[in-house]
Amino acid sequence: MTELTGPVEVVGTGLLGTSIGLACRAAGLEVILSDTSPEHLRTATGLGAGRPRTSADRAQLVVVAVPPVHLDAVIAQALARSDAVVTDVGSIKTQPLAAVAGTPGAARYVGGHPMAGSEHSGPLAASAALFDGRPWAITPHATADPEAVALVESLVLLCGGVPVRMSPAEHDKAVARTSHVPHLLASLVAGRLAEAPREHLLLSGQGIRDVTRVAAGDPGLYGQIVTGNAEAVLTLLAEVRHRLDEVIEAVTDRDGAALEALLAEGVAGTVAIPGKHGRPSRPMSSVFVTVPDEPGGLARLFADAGASKVNIEDVRIDHDPARPVGLVELVVSEARAEHLMTQLEARGWTCHR
Amino acid sequence: MTELTGPVEVVGTGLLGTSIGLACRAAGLEVILSDTSPEHLRTATGLGAGRPRTSADRAQLVVVAVPPVHLDAVIAQALARSDAVVTDVGSIKTQPLAAVAGTPGAARYVGGHPMAGSEHSGPLAASAALFDGRPWAITPHATADPEAVALVESLVLLCGGVPVRMSPAEHDKAVARTSHVPHLLASLVAGRLAEAPREHLLLSGQGIRDVTRVAAGDPGLYGQIVTGNAEAVLTLLAEVRHRLDEVIEAVTDRDGAALEALLAEGVAGTVAIPGKHGRPSRPMSSVFVTVPDEPGGLARLFADAGASKVNIEDVRIDHDPARPVGLVELVVSEARAEHLMTQLEARGWTCHR
Repeated sequence: MTELTGPVEVVGTGLLGTSIGLACRAAGLEVILSDTSPEHLRTATGLGAGRPRTSADRAQLVVVAVPPVHLDAVIAQALARSDAVVTDVGSIKTQPLAAVAGTPGAARYVGGHPMAGSEHSGPLAASAALFDGRPWAITPHATADPEAVALVESLVLLCGGVPVRMSPAEHDKAVARTSHVPHLLASLVAGRLAEAPREHLLLSGQGIRDVTRVAAGDPGLYGQIVTGNAEAVLTLLAEVRHRLDEVIEAVTDRDGAALEALLAEGVAGTVAIPGKHGRPSRPMSSVFVTVPDEPGGLARLFADAGASKVNIEDVRIDHDPARPVGLVELVVSEARAEHLMTQLEARGWTCHR
Repeated sequence: MTELTGPVEVVGTGLLGTSIGLACRAAGLEVILSDTSPEHLRTATGLGAGRPRTSADRAQLVVVAVPPVHLDAVIAQALARSDAVVTDVGSIKTQPLAAVAGTPGAARYVGGHPMAGSEHSGPLAASAALFDGRPWAITPHATADPEAVALVESLVLLCGGVPVRMSPAEHDKAVARTSHVPHLLASLVAGRLAEAPREHLLLSGQGIRDVTRVAAGDPGLYGQIVTGNAEAVLTLLAEVRHRLDEVIEAVTDRDGAALEALLAEGVAGTVAIPGKHGRPSRPMSSVFVTVPDEPGGLARLFADAGASKVNIEDVRIDHDPARPVGLVELVVSEARAEHLMTQLEARGWTCHR
């Protein structure tokens, strides 16, 4: 198996590219950077993500981290100008493959897609820890060189990501379901809020905030991603449209039983999402605690929760509309919830389940 | 103004009714309970939420907290059998009003709807703190007695809720938008996961978990709520369906500009949701921290974050699929993010923005 020894060349020094550069530098590899934006390149080198590319450079692995519209061309160029292995970090995997298929270097191309990012972009938001514990799809095509695949997997592991191997077509179907269609529907829900009377929104609870959070993402970028994965997205949108018509029919007919069956399908879906660390999901329970909204309030709560020796699986803070207190939801295994609540109440916290 | 001195009678000792009983008892008021389930009634009295009703009891205020299907009848009975003020805690406000309108006691009925609850139900999940800081809609009809309205507002304040006054029709339109339609669409997204290949779901990130969380709610209860608010829900579902067709058309045509415009509408909607404590939302920034997934890990993080004197506005924990670490997102004001990160890194945490 070919070891990842570098140099690693990163084309595109945005959030993802610069973060990969930082992770490789932290592991002692030589990193070569390039970008059409001199400002981004200066920032990335200034952060220690690598040094600017020279014409004499020969990389072992090229990572293409450019916006979706430039992906095909930059991957093809990278394959043509050297014999390095080439990967990318784009959100769609069949489209760039179609662009390189049949070219001499195609066997050296192995697609990748880290499930990481943030609402921020650009090199200043980058970090060597960005990929820590995140799934990172590796999508070799049928004629990909096994050594090239292994080299890309080495990069994923070096960055702290969790490799998930699947075909490009499977990948695109998967992200249509887990990312693109949820984003579109969250956006449709959020779009109804923009035109709402302001006083209606005073009744907004945690539910609407959760449903619409992803809809705050950059419309230009998501527009490119979704049109680039049109086929898989359209298949699912057709299903959604069909079910939406059934929902409308059930509500129009005041048919509670039909609506209940449709909602039960949703409940089954929430259970299908893998549990933490890929384990099957196990019964969880929430303990709600009232916390003063001031520096140190959460620290005291978590110190007390820590003393109870109960592992906190998830935390949510509810935004209340008018008072300087927060309602914190601690999610723990069902078997431990009663113990946690007793312990917190003994330390003076106001709790409920 | 009439003071709330009790007795308060609570009809229906589920999660909401028992919680109201506990809050009133904590404030020293006499509370009278009734329920068609002797077991629930026994549990609620055992928890200290009040005592069982006798035929001699005369309440100052009756709170109807029964399932949606029984709401109309129980409110009408409560108005008929005494001269007490009557309120309820149902999720829909025009329907029960239609049932009491024109009856002699109608002026004594004032609808209410606390924005509180949980995925649990029944009296065992109850707590006097359930309504702490939560919006609580008060929906007087045109001929409601102002003293009755004031009495219901006193109950809301006693329970720690934040009164939000609006007409029954406005309320139903508001919750169709902020709760019922988001729930239905979250359920449509979640429904697509149930039938997905299991390996596709390995690419699930925080986004899909957020979008689908509310879809785990009880299908029977939400079916009743939605069919009970059919008119307002159908108006919005028609808009959603229209926009969904536009999305499908834009994706089919690979029309990035059209899709971007639709997604921008969603961004505007996320900005329209009121900020914490009803203040305008201000720029927030996220700091991501890698935390070992063990008891005490979060406690150490929050102790260190507390020492930095930066107020944590929100917290999310990302579930990584394969490793015993959690990625914790701390949301703080943009102006304080850099300081928090520096402080945490100085204490040995791995952070990024």
